[in-house]
Amino acid sequence: MDNNQIKNDAITRQEDDFAQWYTDVCRKAELMDYSSVKGFIIYRPYGYAIWEQIQNYLDRRFKETGHENVYMPMVIPESLFAREKEHIEGFAPECLIANIGGSAPIDDPLIIRPTSEVLFCDHYAKIIKSYRDLPKLYNQWCSVVRWEKTTRPFLRGAEFLWQEGHTMHETEEEARTETLKMLDIYNELGRDVLAIPFSCGRKTDKEKFSGALETYSIEALMPDGKALQSGTTHYFGNGFAEAFGIQFQGRDGKLHSPHQTSWGVSTRLIGATIMAHGDDNGLVLPPRVAPIQVIIIPIAQNKPGVLTAAKEVFKQFANAGFRVKIDDSDKTPGWKFSEWEMKGVPLRVELGPRDIEKGQVVIAKRNTGEKIICSMDEMIEKSQELVNIIHKEMYDKAYKYLLNHTTEVHNLKEFNEALEKGGYAKMMWCGNVECENKIKDLTNATARCLPFNQMPFGDTCPCCGKKASKVVLFAKAY
Amino acid sequence: MDNNQIKNDAITRQEDDFAQWYTDVCRKAELMDYSSVKGFIIYRPYGYAIWEQIQNYLDRRFKETGHENVYMPMVIPESLFAREKEHIEGFAPECLIANIGGSAPIDDPLIIRPTSEVLFCDHYAKIIKSYRDLPKLYNQWCSVVRWEKTTRPFLRGAEFLWQEGHTMHETEEEARTETLKMLDIYNELGRDVLAIPFSCGRKTDKEKFSGALETYSIEALMPDGKALQSGTTHYFGNGFAEAFGIQFQGRDGKLHSPHQTSWGVSTRLIGATIMAHGDDNGLVLPPRVAPIQVIIIPIAQNKPGVLTAAKEVFKQFANAGFRVKIDDSDKTPGWKFSEWEMKGVPLRVELGPRDIEKGQVVIAKRNTGEKIICSMDEMIEKSQELVNIIHKEMYDKAYKYLLNHTTEVHNLKEFNEALEKGGYAKMMWCGNVECENKIKDLTNATARCLPFNQMPFGDTCPCCGKKASKVVLFAKAY
Repeated sequence: MDNNQIKNDAITRQEDDFAQWYTDVCRKAELMDYSSVKGFIIYRPYGYAIWEQIQNYLDRRFKETGHENVYMPMVIPESLFAREKEHIEGFAPECLIANIGGSAPIDDPLIIRPTSEVLFCDHYAKIIKSYRDLPKLYNQWCSVVRWEKTTRPFLRGAEFLWQEGHTMHETEEEARTETLKMLDIYNELGRDVLAIPFSCGRKTDKEKFSGALETYSIEALMPDGKALQSGTTHYFGNGFAEAFGIQFQGRDGKLHSPHQTSWGVSTRLIGATIMAHGDDNGLVLPPRVAPIQVIIIPIAQNKPGVLTAAKEVFKQFANAGFRVKIDDSDKTPGWKFSEWEMKGVPLRVELGPRDIEKGQVVIAKRNTGEKIICSMDEMIEKSQELVNIIHKEMYDKAYKYLLNHTTEVHNLKEFNEALEKGGYAKMMWCGNVECENKIKDLTNATARCLPFNQMPFGDTCPCCGKKASKVVLFAKAY
Repeated sequence: MDNNQIKNDAITRQEDDFAQWYTDVCRKAELMDYSSVKGFIIYRPYGYAIWEQIQNYLDRRFKETGHENVYMPMVIPESLFAREKEHIEGFAPECLIANIGGSAPIDDPLIIRPTSEVLFCDHYAKIIKSYRDLPKLYNQWCSVVRWEKTTRPFLRGAEFLWQEGHTMHETEEEARTETLKMLDIYNELGRDVLAIPFSCGRKTDKEKFSGALETYSIEALMPDGKALQSGTTHYFGNGFAEAFGIQFQGRDGKLHSPHQTSWGVSTRLIGATIMAHGDDNGLVLPPRVAPIQVIIIPIAQNKPGVLTAAKEVFKQFANAGFRVKIDDSDKTPGWKFSEWEMKGVPLRVELGPRDIEKGQVVIAKRNTGEKIICSMDEMIEKSQELVNIIHKEMYDKAYKYLLNHTTEVHNLKEFNEALEKGGYAKMMWCGNVECENKIKDLTNATARCLPFNQMPFGDTCPCCGKKASKVVLFAKAY
């Protein structure tokens, strides 16, 4: 069969070509497909379902912390976008611009939103009048467009799905707290759902968002030794507020500018999850984000009683709240095994005539390949336990990799060796952008963040030899 | 206070100017705001939350019936859009077109999606090979852009939020069944959630979707006597499939074209809900779609014990699964009453010192104004009951209005009288488009649908006098 042929094609091995392995997995696990427009991808059901799991978690966390969802227009008039100078300079080179509407030219061309700060500010200027109107804690789920030259599925696209939070606060302190609180939520998404240990910290001035006073990020270290910026939160001060004339009457009766934040994560997190955990057999999905947690495969399903028993097992898993599917197609068990391994389903439950006779099933763990024979009476409890064990094993493995690939360096030779090994070169830094630039020129590595957990291990910048008090993580990055 | 001033402004009365009443409610209930771009609105938290309730219901129903969510690009190359002729002719006049990307002109200009049939077909051509790949039951939640000249909040916008289902089937019968099944789900959304009795039926050829063989719709009758098309489902046959070269190997080993459907509802449903139920005090929201179902208002909240008791009541409602909010702001109870009436919250729970003494609360129904005194022990059970009663009362009221404004007409004089009264002129029709056109020219009414429940009441077309066997609902429409 044609279809089987495609499915069973081997994917490139990670050690042969990690980038090609990644693309192979994206396509063969049916996460995405290319569209007719370069850089715009199609999120196929299995890929989109991962995004829905991420959305479910974050949307709940956002609402629990008092945020409300809104929806702003997908277009921004050029004149409005230009109101904050640094911001437009940062985004202008990658804008998609519409200038024909209903067959007629549009006077003030419309930028398809690359991010929505200016739209929120334009609205906030109308609705914020008094300190009683603050804070405003808005979030939006949408897609944004950035006209990128080089694109890769989920990692860098002309259009991607994301959420963007935009908040306004009475005081600087409150806004700064928000910036860090939302970074925490992102970090917990990694820790508790994606099984990815993020490195959290502040961006250098060179790397921060156009228009922000401070940017914080979560960075994930990928198995090819490159870092992936996986989410950011920004503190803006009141720069935008002033540019947009947003003022409120304070408790003192005087007019003030509110303090602003924004924060976002995108479908790039799907890319992070694929790379962080995948292996040469395909995807390995962390159970809490897996669209299908349990795949049931009947063995010798034509034998009497097998399908009935498999459906009974399915029912038990479904009733216990598992996201479960049964593969009773007419393909061979071997084909099904590799298909669902490719798709990274955390638990495979097999049962054939002999298992049924013995009242047991075989449970296989995708992350380790380990097989467990389990009585049908205990399979639900066992699987609930396994889901947590697998999550922990996957997190621990990624964390161990992160530790093993974070190297403290004291000079440029060690810096280069650390990069060669792959991962972070952890360096004391003078804080000077010239050193940052020089390192980038020499090594192509960039400052990923100044981690919150600073713990200085020296006092000299290996680049200029001057006094250094900041710990910074450098790495090659996506 | 400024803010109070704004809130307490009276809104236009329905009988004075229904259109102005509608706009007033949209803005004063804080459902939406205008943006800097004409026709593009801002969905404010309270308006967006209604959409989230609709999404929750529909997304569950779609998944239960085997549909999967995907996400397609927001842009369509002009050349791709042009592949199905009728389709592009229908949409070309209202397209927004981007032709600058990253500061350079784009060779094949990009249409911001007004609907995504061609994107789905382009993808289906790649992934449908065999009857085993069918059916494909995809749905997408997104926004679309239609460059309309005249726009009204939620009813007709340059950009609106919607879902679009696009499915492919092995047989015509299966596709036709799908088209009707999804219309049923829309109808049930009206019946069970929005408390709107939709009229369901088939569109005339003149009114059907560009490129469809058949279009079905749910139509809602508004209190100003105009019909609002609230959702449509389309059967395409295999016209698009042939234009896009989608073929599958059938059970007979030969190549066939699959049969296609699409279906969608949009944030227009918010507009339908506002108009169907609202009154001169503002919104009246059906309980199952209301973002806040219960608003608790403490009376004399500075008196000792009042706020504590109100918070206890809040907790009980929250634990029972109500969407509940407490308004303990420093505004007067009177101001709060009209504020939450404006926002259409179905149940208001008041409690003051005397109520607390007696162990009771006062529950007020937004739809009728009726007040019920209820012991705190019974308030949860009573409110659960009231939610269902209110839903039924609201549905029944709208249904009664629909019955009273559906007039069987036998000649053009009666037709005009029916329109003057407001609502549907129900007419026997010869099936000829000339009569449909003539009626539109004479009366500005259009054929809304041929209702499923046909029940002919004559055999002569009042327009041409020829034999008529079809029952059709005409009305002025949004």
